[in-house]
Amino acid sequence: MSDLRERAEALDTADELAAHRGMFALDDTVYLDGNSLGALPAHVPDRMRDVLTRQWGELRIRSWDESGWWTAPERIGDRIAPLVGAGPGRIVVGDSTSVNVFKAVVAASRLAAGGRDEILVDATTFPTDGYIAASAARMTGHRLVPVAPADVPDALGPRTALVLLNHVDYRTGRLHDLPGLTAAAHAAGALAVWDLCHSAGALPVGLDAHGVDLAVGCTYKYLNGGPGSPAFLYVAERHQAAFDSPLPGWTSHADPFAMTPGYTPAEGSVRGRVGTPDILSMLALEASLDVWDGVRVDTVRAKSLALTDFFLECVAAYVPAGRVVPVTPFAHAERGSQVSLRCEDAPAVMAELIARGVVGDLRRPDILRFGFTPLYVGFADAERAARVLAEVVAV
Amino acid sequence: MSDLRERAEALDTADELAAHRGMFALDDTVYLDGNSLGALPAHVPDRMRDVLTRQWGELRIRSWDESGWWTAPERIGDRIAPLVGAGPGRIVVGDSTSVNVFKAVVAASRLAAGGRDEILVDATTFPTDGYIAASAARMTGHRLVPVAPADVPDALGPRTALVLLNHVDYRTGRLHDLPGLTAAAHAAGALAVWDLCHSAGALPVGLDAHGVDLAVGCTYKYLNGGPGSPAFLYVAERHQAAFDSPLPGWTSHADPFAMTPGYTPAEGSVRGRVGTPDILSMLALEASLDVWDGVRVDTVRAKSLALTDFFLECVAAYVPAGRVVPVTPFAHAERGSQVSLRCEDAPAVMAELIARGVVGDLRRPDILRFGFTPLYVGFADAERAARVLAEVVAV
Repeated sequence: MSDLRERAEALDTADELAAHRGMFALDDTVYLDGNSLGALPAHVPDRMRDVLTRQWGELRIRSWDESGWWTAPERIGDRIAPLVGAGPGRIVVGDSTSVNVFKAVVAASRLAAGGRDEILVDATTFPTDGYIAASAARMTGHRLVPVAPADVPDALGPRTALVLLNHVDYRTGRLHDLPGLTAAAHAAGALAVWDLCHSAGALPVGLDAHGVDLAVGCTYKYLNGGPGSPAFLYVAERHQAAFDSPLPGWTSHADPFAMTPGYTPAEGSVRGRVGTPDILSMLALEASLDVWDGVRVDTVRAKSLALTDFFLECVAAYVPAGRVVPVTPFAHAERGSQVSLRCEDAPAVMAELIARGVVGDLRRPDILRFGFTPLYVGFADAERAARVLAEVVAV
Repeated sequence: MSDLRERAEALDTADELAAHRGMFALDDTVYLDGNSLGALPAHVPDRMRDVLTRQWGELRIRSWDESGWWTAPERIGDRIAPLVGAGPGRIVVGDSTSVNVFKAVVAASRLAAGGRDEILVDATTFPTDGYIAASAARMTGHRLVPVAPADVPDALGPRTALVLLNHVDYRTGRLHDLPGLTAAAHAAGALAVWDLCHSAGALPVGLDAHGVDLAVGCTYKYLNGGPGSPAFLYVAERHQAAFDSPLPGWTSHADPFAMTPGYTPAEGSVRGRVGTPDILSMLALEASLDVWDGVRVDTVRAKSLALTDFFLECVAAYVPAGRVVPVTPFAHAERGSQVSLRCEDAPAVMAELIARGVVGDLRRPDILRFGFTPLYVGFADAERAARVLAEVVAV
């Protein structure tokens, strides 16, 4: 056995999260695509059978009260809150990330001081954020200014209403400086809106501690909520009373069942709700979150860094020089929970990796993307992935 | 046995949809709340176990292609289309009704001829439509004009950009004249946007035939898609090329996986998509739609009218005069698939009805609402509901 295989074994033996793998439905595939779709927590199908057969099938309409359906968006928000450093009552679950970006950007533009007419948006962002921010800017009369995250401090100014940034870049895996960029936005009198899709459940976020104004995130990556599970919206406590949603649906009303023609918004995170919640997707997410019981995000982060360090080390040791080039930063402070490798023939290489049981994904044109979910990925997985990658690119 | 009970038995015997009841998970409750939450089609839990354990649990990310997850919104839209008189490629499923109202109202305001600055909205509407239309009007610079549906023809004018109407009033069960009001809107140069929440799956809609411009609807009432199942959006073929969504999320892009910074909308109904589809809720809906195989909406409508006629007759025969007053029109052309009865002590009466196994719902302050889903409600149910109502109000 190679030195790296022995090291992997030792690291797995010492891993305090190793037992969590057993909570998931996994086979002998090396699954490094949890940053696209998290694996299935094994208990979820039984929980969903109860939701379907008893809650929907037998209780039917009574479940809105008796099974807690009505309050699911804020209840599940409170389950996610500690994973991203938010107090209770600040997060609500529902709708897609895109819809929540719209709520957050429009609401932030309304919270911003008068006369500020620019919205800065991460020019390297996952595209939906840019498309939606452009629509929000068009509808609110703001000017959209795409800026690389590193240039945000220089771009901030007296015209900036808000800045929309990604915590971790979906393509490169670069972790941006949430505390520093939030402080820079505030120093310029602007609001900071963060997209946590690639950080929630992977590393500490500290929304409250760093004074983030608004944030959105998805739940089907590191939170394992299931395909297309509902996204979440965070509104800082100090903004909740003035939070003015562009999507004031009936379930965000202070008294929804009064069904009055006039809209009076509810207090707290409930104000971020829109329509009737998609209960099946939502309760699968709620069940999935059980795997976090007793897990500290700091522990997850430590393992994530150890895993990606080790994977990079294995890649450097196994893969012929020049065949792949890491684009994810080596510095821990700049790394999310994925490793992206630039590779000239990335489409063919990823197809062959998948055929050989190592599942990452491709970001066109030339990025091999490997996500490391510390709850179920181990060091032997990292070593095997690098080893198979070396075999594939050697062909 | 009373005459009405005998008649109920004969009507059930002659009912060509009677066998459909066996497709649903039902007990001896008389379930007249399918206009709030449709009953569970009995095969759905097994289908969802496959979605959970095999599609998510085993195939994981591969299911976006291999299990058809990616195309579910437009595929399921095409399943719903014939139920509302739409051709293929005109309906897309996803998001809540409220979010779709926002898309439809904003898009219609952009499709309208220049210089038209008013949005007419049903003053008696389910409130979310009014709240969302108000937000859309605020963001697009239109003036919102609440109008009773009967007054719409007089209110239409050269300033009207669009009118947003409900096909069936959620409270009274009144069916509005979709062909006539659509024609009136067009004659005034305006667009007609319809909310089909209380008509889709209950009666013929004829979207294409009547030239409706845009429409939205929910799938958890007469379509039995499950709690909070995704809503749908219809865009008439003639408007699709110019349909300009306020929520241009990445999954509506012409080439979503190119992940380009610039937004190029897809063609057809796909343009109404926003974010990653909520697959679990969506595939439960898709499975549920199997109960419609071989069913003609005309047949459903005929039974619905026979059921509500018979229920009104039983109420008139059993309930002491003056205790309840029907607010749903007697004229078939003006009746949806529910019967609403005004009752002074409606909250207490509905609570007692539910306790005695007759499940309708309450619309505050004084409406008892009974929905008749022809696929699983029979004439004996209608007779029993009226009989128990008479017992309850006699106390």
